Amino acid sequence: MDYNRVFNQAIDRLHAEGRYRVFIDILRNKGAYPNARCFAGHNGPKPITVWCSNDYLAMGQHPKVISAMEEALHNVGAGSGGTRNIGGNTHYHVDLEAELADLHGKDGALLFTSGYVSNEATLATLAKVLPGCIVFSDELNHASMIAGIRNSGCEKRVWRHNDLAHLEELLAAEDEEVPKLIAFESVYSMDGDVADIAAICDLADKYNALTYCDEVHAVGMYGARGGGITERDGVADRVTIIEGTLGKAFGVMGGYIAASQTIVDVIRSYAPGFIFTTSLSPVLVAGVLASVRHLKASSEERDAQQAAAATLKAMLTEAGLPVMATTTHIVPLMIGDPVKAKKVSDILLAEYGVYVQPINYPTVPRGTERLRFTPGPTHSVEMMRELVDALSEIWSRIELRKAA
Amino acid sequence: MDYNRVFNQAIDRLHAEGRYRVFIDILRNKGAYPNARCFAGHNGPKPITVWCSNDYLAMGQHPKVISAMEEALHNVGAGSGGTRNIGGNTHYHVDLEAELADLHGKDGALLFTSGYVSNEATLATLAKVLPGCIVFSDELNHASMIAGIRNSGCEKRVWRHNDLAHLEELLAAEDEEVPKLIAFESVYSMDGDVADIAAICDLADKYNALTYCDEVHAVGMYGARGGGITERDGVADRVTIIEGTLGKAFGVMGGYIAASQTIVDVIRSYAPGFIFTTSLSPVLVAGVLASVRHLKASSEERDAQQAAAATLKAMLTEAGLPVMATTTHIVPLMIGDPVKAKKVSDILLAEYGVYVQPINYPTVPRGTERLRFTPGPTHSVEMMRELVDALSEIWSRIELRKAA
Ligand SMILES: Cc1ncc(COP(=O)(O)O)c(C=O)c1O
Ligand SMILES: Cc1ncc(COP(=O)(O)O)c(C=O)c1O
Repeated sequence: MDYNRVFNQAIDRLHAEGRYRVFIDILRNKGAYPNARCFAGHNGPKPITVWCSNDYLAMGQHPKVISAMEEALHNVGAGSGGTRNIGGNTHYHVDLEAELADLHGKDGALLFTSGYVSNEATLATLAKVLPGCIVFSDELNHASMIAGIRNSGCEKRVWRHNDLAHLEELLAAEDEEVPKLIAFESVYSMDGDVADIAAICDLADKYNALTYCDEVHAVGMYGARGGGITERDGVADRVTIIEGTLGKAFGVMGGYIAASQTIVDVIRSYAPGFIFTTSLSPVLVAGVLASVRHLKASSEERDAQQAAAATLKAMLTEAGLPVMATTTHIVPLMIGDPVKAKKVSDILLAEYGVYVQPINYPTVPRGTERLRFTPGPTHSVEMMRELVDALSEIWSRIELRKAA
Repeated sequence: MDYNRVFNQAIDRLHAEGRYRVFIDILRNKGAYPNARCFAGHNGPKPITVWCSNDYLAMGQHPKVISAMEEALHNVGAGSGGTRNIGGNTHYHVDLEAELADLHGKDGALLFTSGYVSNEATLATLAKVLPGCIVFSDELNHASMIAGIRNSGCEKRVWRHNDLAHLEELLAAEDEEVPKLIAFESVYSMDGDVADIAAICDLADKYNALTYCDEVHAVGMYGARGGGITERDGVADRVTIIEGTLGKAFGVMGGYIAASQTIVDVIRSYAPGFIFTTSLSPVLVAGVLASVRHLKASSEERDAQQAAAATLKAMLTEAGLPVMATTTHIVPLMIGDPVKAKKVSDILLAEYGVYVQPINYPTVPRGTERLRFTPGPTHSVEMMRELVDALSEIWSRIELRKAA
């Protein structure tokens, strides 16, 4: 048994497929986002423009967030020092859970160290507590949901992406008395399309199923108070569990669920991924509190972000570049090949100081490799013009397919 | 199918066993640790002394850590804004990985959002990459290791706690050609005992197995530079993978592994729990960098902590209280009943302003419920005297068993 040979083969497979990942080493310039510095290669930090951050609203740079974190740092220190049960339950955690429950109009909420962990821990635990539970999962669900469902050990039925006729077919095929859970996302972050949540809830009512909605790419972004697509569509009260992240539109780090107090109590009491880990640093929690409160009251950032996304989509379309049609803030540009996607990204960084990461398998299916732009309130029209010109030049240079 | 009935039954089981958890709501007073404020009940914040934090060395309050975090907050902002691969790889992350690799004398290191995630993601991925792998797991391994091993789907053999004859028996029973991984902790945090790492490595050599050592309760705490028990015992180079947390002795939040560059590359490339999640906030990473660097150079905190633990153990023993014999910094006081453990803890908080969480199932086996004290460099002898007097009074009042 030669362990190193096996490990090296695993790495060689990635090189062979052109999807070995090299992380771009950057530092954002606070107050000047999307400007940043890149530490690639030998020649010192180089100024770049970041086009692929999920800090969609630049809240990670917001003065209210920064000063709340600074205050917490001086008030209580760096870490929580314990799990939620053993010394790590600070008053910040309690306040933020109340704030998030209110954001979604639920009785309760529960914090996790990340959105990934909230999905994994909640889905794994829920399906275990309900004996014989079958989970119905949209085929494009995020890796963290898939992990949770798999780790629960329960039966799973996969429905074709956003195809509710298929979902109904699968629901109808099961015994009425069997516990059922429908798991889906609101905004699918790589294609930028949106689930018809009301119609999913209709099916859930008809077949007596629970619903679980990942709003990771929608919280802070949609709805009058940033409650996500469930708020925008007026269906938050119909979804059993709403899950979100604190690391994208809210600009910090962490994850959560909002649900009935009973469900929160069950997850809190039974999920190993919640119980056996140091709680979120109070410094992060304080920052998120400021961010959530701000975005509940202000739609300025949401509106500016939507406007920026619309402008960039229009400019890309006009230039004949293959931008994917989306109804959301996500701007994906299809390339369809991992090596070419990386090449475009490399040229952008080296020659134009533009940082946009190529998205390849396993994040998206093979053959659908793409660039994914996330213009925000601080990306100017001038920056967009430069970007589109650069892309047009590269598209001709390496002879990529233009829009149909 | 009545979902609420099932959920309520799950909660009722906890009440019936006396292990329903109510989180104590606290805020530490920076600069005055272990003093804190408690928000329990109606009567406003009340001053308490914290005796159960895993911020063992009070590094979460260290001026160098606080100022490094403050600087990062102003330099780059709150969150990283992305996964490590997509926009979330900052220069702080790169520097900290180099620092941690150096701490353990390894080629590489990899950061995770928590110690829990580092165990789960690494063990699950490693055992999947090695076809047919069998994991040999100490029976007292932490929940996060158990989750990782289970989620890998591989075969598992459980050896009796720290019983190397049993481990050898299990190793010898398997085919020579099958990949093998021995997973264990250095310091077991609830009993305070230590694994014989050199002897485990001897067995690993003999049976051609990889070794995985969770040093969560030892990093920062043991060894001349805080490299853990593997450093203290001079065996770091013999252990294949060393895992640690950034949320206990280092005082902040996060987790990591240190290993060969090849193994780091495999985990980085294949572990969903590493790939599909927003990276650690650069603010946290900056704080950890300062903490690790300080504890590499200074043994003052380690020495003071060991002295405090020894003093408290001696005082408890002298008072005839059933302190468990440990060779480490952990000071557990056995009670053996969840209801009584909670009662002692409740009285300590309500009448003496002492906060120590009762430890019950599933954190420890049923029937071994206990209090677990973590005296640190800032707990004075006077505080210890008050604590021991309070415990003696309560022990008599509710007629608990004294030491044999
Ligand atoms: C749909 C979806 N769910 C969950 C997550 C995980 O959230 P977090 O980054 O907070 O771990 C992500 C991305 O990271 C995501 O895209
Ligand atoms: C032995 C052990 N491993 C891992 C962990 C998880 O580390 P973290 O708190 O950083 O998630 C803990 C405790 O939380 C632990 O006690």
